[in-house]
Amino acid sequence: MALVVQKFGGTSVGSIDRMRNVARRALRARAQGHDVVLIVSAMSGETNRLLGLAHEVTGVPDAREMDVIAATGEQVSAALVAMAVQAEGGQARSLLGHQVKILTDDAFTKARIRAIDGSMIRETLAEGKIAVVAGFQGVDAGGNITTLGRGGSDTSAVAVAAAINADVCEIYTDVDGVYTTDPNICSSARKISRISYEEMLELASLGAKVLQIRSVELAMKYGVAVHVRSSFSDVEGTWVVAEEKSLEDVVVAGVAYDKNDARVHVMGAPDQANVVADLFGAIADRNISVDMIIQSATTGPERAVTFTVPKSDLTRARPFIEEVAKRIGATEVRYDEDVVKVSIVGLGMRSHAGVAAKMFRLLANEGINIQAISTSEIKVSCLIHAKYTELAVRALHDGFGLANEAGGK
Amino acid sequence: MALVVQKFGGTSVGSIDRMRNVARRALRARAQGHDVVLIVSAMSGETNRLLGLAHEVTGVPDAREMDVIAATGEQVSAALVAMAVQAEGGQARSLLGHQVKILTDDAFTKARIRAIDGSMIRETLAEGKIAVVAGFQGVDAGGNITTLGRGGSDTSAVAVAAAINADVCEIYTDVDGVYTTDPNICSSARKISRISYEEMLELASLGAKVLQIRSVELAMKYGVAVHVRSSFSDVEGTWVVAEEKSLEDVVVAGVAYDKNDARVHVMGAPDQANVVADLFGAIADRNISVDMIIQSATTGPERAVTFTVPKSDLTRARPFIEEVAKRIGATEVRYDEDVVKVSIVGLGMRSHAGVAAKMFRLLANEGINIQAISTSEIKVSCLIHAKYTELAVRALHDGFGLANEAGGK
Repeated sequence: MALVVQKFGGTSVGSIDRMRNVARRALRARAQGHDVVLIVSAMSGETNRLLGLAHEVTGVPDAREMDVIAATGEQVSAALVAMAVQAEGGQARSLLGHQVKILTDDAFTKARIRAIDGSMIRETLAEGKIAVVAGFQGVDAGGNITTLGRGGSDTSAVAVAAAINADVCEIYTDVDGVYTTDPNICSSARKISRISYEEMLELASLGAKVLQIRSVELAMKYGVAVHVRSSFSDVEGTWVVAEEKSLEDVVVAGVAYDKNDARVHVMGAPDQANVVADLFGAIADRNISVDMIIQSATTGPERAVTFTVPKSDLTRARPFIEEVAKRIGATEVRYDEDVVKVSIVGLGMRSHAGVAAKMFRLLANEGINIQAISTSEIKVSCLIHAKYTELAVRALHDGFGLANEAGGK
Repeated sequence: MALVVQKFGGTSVGSIDRMRNVARRALRARAQGHDVVLIVSAMSGETNRLLGLAHEVTGVPDAREMDVIAATGEQVSAALVAMAVQAEGGQARSLLGHQVKILTDDAFTKARIRAIDGSMIRETLAEGKIAVVAGFQGVDAGGNITTLGRGGSDTSAVAVAAAINADVCEIYTDVDGVYTTDPNICSSARKISRISYEEMLELASLGAKVLQIRSVELAMKYGVAVHVRSSFSDVEGTWVVAEEKSLEDVVVAGVAYDKNDARVHVMGAPDQANVVADLFGAIADRNISVDMIIQSATTGPERAVTFTVPKSDLTRARPFIEEVAKRIGATEVRYDEDVVKVSIVGLGMRSHAGVAAKMFRLLANEGINIQAISTSEIKVSCLIHAKYTELAVRALHDGFGLANEAGGK
């Protein structure tokens, strides 16, 4: 007998029929003797509908009130799923963020969980009931409703699993696990059976959408075993677990890509120490995150600086990038949105030399020019022209042996 | 400077544009120096949509979970109206049942308010903000979400007004006040400018739909001055206030009618003391409320008993009415749904003799047969055939002088 947390996303509770499936799956786990906690998202489309209402009122809705509205999506799902369990002959009780007490900070629309009082969940389980917890939402110290940002239900699930010391946190989704790369653009992509928290974190940060980044951070911090699997079948999915010996043999666990960044190229700035500091200081002041930064080695008295910012921030960033560029004496600023960041991730890189060099060679073999590079202990990312996305992903995936059953060596 | 509670029903917040009107009206009151608390219902149609979802899951949804779902309607309205106030340049904060803390019993879907902690509302007002309270909802001692039943937002408004000692509780609705009778069937109906709690309570109980009965009970208990008025205009509506000298001069304040009851006629029961007790004891055991009861005076050894029950309970009530009828030896049970209860209400009846007799004469003049009668200190009700509804209402309304500006003497 185990304590199981099962999280179902918006597609998995997207209709009353699908809610019945969720209920039956939970009851099967109970029939096997497990205690079950469900974490549910809003029905797919519902959050957008609610936010649309808010935007009808005003272009810049108050964040506190946005959360009051957005939280109703999960509130309705939780109660409907509890009813579905009852309709299938089981017992269930819905629990909202302020009832469970999922305490967060007061950063409305993107709050972070500070603590979870698991007692109301434990009481519900002790009564023989399935606890159906509304995902995505919490409550701050002042009793205000907060939400955790898009994908926040994954974070709710892992945090609840940690708080009640669950044996496993199952994340049910519309794919059946984590893949070596996006199967939509690479037909040889394979499902990964086990992956470390660190690798999953890099993959999620670099564009893989299957798990929310913060949920992986939390799972790593509290050692929660996460099982990503399909809500439409019973096959084993992907286990996200602590680093283990066998995983270190895998040089490259997966290939990710991300089209959300734009490249900015500042040219002709004088070669002085304060120039780069001024530029990035100004950008950081506006709360825009810069990812890759390349400073060209030049022979003359001028330098060029290239960096990437999220495309969604570019319109907002342009005026003051240009203002700062002028102030530091740069001659020109160019922008390029036709870029993609392709990345390889793997624990084994730490002990295998030449992985980055092999990546560059694989791209060069396809005639792909690399515009920027960034690396960490377990990943290498290259910025390339967006038109090469599929070509690059397939070349890296197969070049590092990920198409084979044994994984990339 | 006053403390004003303004309640807006589902029609008054039925669209984003209407919410803007609500916001502007509240801001006008603030501009006049008043502190303003808004109580809002769900957008019209929303509660039915939500309950429809629940009924898709199961025919008999769990009452606790129903309330979790239903409460989201008012939650969304409250946040949207708070945003609308902000969009008009004001400051506002939405407050939910569990935040205000509107403490109720745990009778889900029809909870009763036990206490209201007004401190969060007072804090919000002290910050110069308009408090936008979600109507219809509360929280029980265990932290579960409860709702107050249909029309419960009126009750929320009056209870909040009592808790914070408001100077007035304005109920905004789609009519501009309380009328001497239903203007849809009687063109000479007039708006009443002042009416006592007692009369309003009788009118609401007897079919007038403008205020929920419990809200009037609460207003009477705590002496809350209620102003029923139109959300689409600025004209004065109807003040519902404590009994005062001038109101006692009005013999009949209004005429109401109610088509929701059915008549049950039990014939041929032996004339024994226990028969009536057995019959009504059995009905009360099933939690069905009986309204009018007539026991015919017979000359023989048999008696006939006539009573009314809500039409909505009739299907459920028939089997055991017939079972009890058989047990007490009755020969026949007849049902009639083609009935209406017309009533006259007025404080002045207490000091004016012959009011009931005048009512019977007015009906007789129109050839209308009276099937049952019930009276209280300030009302007389007659059960008649439903086809005479309009005829009877007009005859009573004009016969008691309600068509004249001076009111019924």
